[in-house]
Amino acid sequence: MKTLLLKKEEVRSLISMKEVISTVEEAYKAFNSNQVVQPDYIGIHLPPPRGEIDFKLSYYMANEVISMKASSGGFNDNPAVHGVPSGMGTILLFDGKSCALICVMDGSLITGLRTGAAGAVSVKLLARKNSRKVTSIGTGNQARMQIRAISEVMNIEEIHAWDNSPDTLAKFKADIEGEFGIPVSMASSKKTAVELADILITTTRGKGTLVEADWIKPGTHIVAIGTDQQGKQELDPEIFRHAKIVNDSTSQCAEKGETWHPLNAKIITYDDIHAEIGEILLGEKPGRENDEEITIFDSTGMAIQDNTTAEKIYRNALGNNVGSFFEFL
Amino acid sequence: MKTLLLKKEEVRSLISMKEVISTVEEAYKAFNSNQVVQPDYIGIHLPPPRGEIDFKLSYYMANEVISMKASSGGFNDNPAVHGVPSGMGTILLFDGKSCALICVMDGSLITGLRTGAAGAVSVKLLARKNSRKVTSIGTGNQARMQIRAISEVMNIEEIHAWDNSPDTLAKFKADIEGEFGIPVSMASSKKTAVELADILITTTRGKGTLVEADWIKPGTHIVAIGTDQQGKQELDPEIFRHAKIVNDSTSQCAEKGETWHPLNAKIITYDDIHAEIGEILLGEKPGRENDEEITIFDSTGMAIQDNTTAEKIYRNALGNNVGSFFEFL
Repeated sequence: MKTLLLKKEEVRSLISMKEVISTVEEAYKAFNSNQVVQPDYIGIHLPPPRGEIDFKLSYYMANEVISMKASSGGFNDNPAVHGVPSGMGTILLFDGKSCALICVMDGSLITGLRTGAAGAVSVKLLARKNSRKVTSIGTGNQARMQIRAISEVMNIEEIHAWDNSPDTLAKFKADIEGEFGIPVSMASSKKTAVELADILITTTRGKGTLVEADWIKPGTHIVAIGTDQQGKQELDPEIFRHAKIVNDSTSQCAEKGETWHPLNAKIITYDDIHAEIGEILLGEKPGRENDEEITIFDSTGMAIQDNTTAEKIYRNALGNNVGSFFEFL
Repeated sequence: MKTLLLKKEEVRSLISMKEVISTVEEAYKAFNSNQVVQPDYIGIHLPPPRGEIDFKLSYYMANEVISMKASSGGFNDNPAVHGVPSGMGTILLFDGKSCALICVMDGSLITGLRTGAAGAVSVKLLARKNSRKVTSIGTGNQARMQIRAISEVMNIEEIHAWDNSPDTLAKFKADIEGEFGIPVSMASSKKTAVELADILITTTRGKGTLVEADWIKPGTHIVAIGTDQQGKQELDPEIFRHAKIVNDSTSQCAEKGETWHPLNAKIITYDDIHAEIGEILLGEKPGRENDEEITIFDSTGMAIQDNTTAEKIYRNALGNNVGSFFEFL
């Protein structure tokens, strides 16, 4: 039995953002087609100042792959004390037909890639076709991923960015302008930046309202990324009152996504949630229906996105003779 | 960051049964000392005729290791159709201080080893000191492991074995007599074999009573291994009525171990469970107190046993320069 080993730099070279957008679309459709077994994830919290390690599992019947992703984050002392990044990842792939271990790959990049792609998939379905201006609240790694992914599916003409750290903001401007040639305006206030947005992306680790409801103009599409566990929040829950609300997984979003807040405040009920995004991809429910509606995509992240993306990387590795083999048995 | 890779044959060479008995004792003590984070395991059941894959996680504060074991079983077509065993395993070890991946090892052997060692630990604490005769109901791989482990902690003079397959039984006799030089008597009836036992080991995949209460003579120690999920059963629940009952984890045993049956039948209550085995090892509760009592050790298996055993294998590998290194980052 041969197991393929793939290092971080090999993983990076083996998949394009365009391919990740496609694997994430496949994941969403699979999730809403009863093709996926995806148990609740398990998290182990280490004592402070350490962070957390999560284990996310899925079985996808169509590709016959079982994936396990271990991903850690919040180990802020790691670079200085241990000489490793503050967050890392490992992915195992098993052949669903035999449960043989077919691949061990570094999983540091996949969460970022598939989360960026999630935003792009939502833009295709929910943003106005004439969208040109993107506002980014938060300017870290995931904000970059969102720009990278969304620029695959639309022509971004200008970016308005805000961050509470001026240094981080300036570095984001330099990086994005250098990589994509899109002008980045450093917003002096969140309000001004949000009012200019055709598409608003939130990718902070916020724990309260960062964006007020009356800043959002009609026709805006909101990509809500940052809130993926209890205690996190980025949006005024009032934004949800008259918006078209789309989730990746409603059970997850209602428990620990941005959607939890308006549900908890009784601003909306479950009936006000328009769709899971896979239902729109499958043509079971409409996406955007006019230029006036405010749309919100709440992404909490699903194991099946790791599955389809990692499986594509594995296939690309086999096809291109990348990686090394190891025989455990 | 370097990750150690260990193949199945390397794992086999890196640890003795005596060491596994010691690591399992450490695991039991840790479990009863609030040193362990051990979430419920996740199982994914594949469509028939395939089996199941389970993911078991633990964090042990004393060794600062997080372990993840994926183990599959019941893929009976595997040898003929896929050329791999019907069950396989993979273990990942993470450094709890940074969550760096420090080891990927084949995990095919560890479940068998640490389960065999569990029986031996219980024999040390709960069997009569003058025990010489072992009866084995079930003669598969785990029955062999029990003999191998128990012979490290007592002098077995004779073995009485029963299996519903005469071929399997004859092969067990030949293997055990060849490996250990202990005479094995092939029992014509379970009743006769059980009545002769100082120590009774049950390791079948039974789904109903295999051993009746009135066959058990005073002073017998029972090692109940086979029942580790709902629907399995080996012992007449009446055996528990007047026995000293010891669990590895009472929450697990009461949910899916042999102990579930007498609890469900109201033959015992939780108050009738004497101890978790770690409490006896820690000196908080007594083991066997006289030569007349019937003792039962119900083992369902815990992730922390995988953790301490795999960590010992990892340390032995580093100390003996066994295995190969891989750099994922």
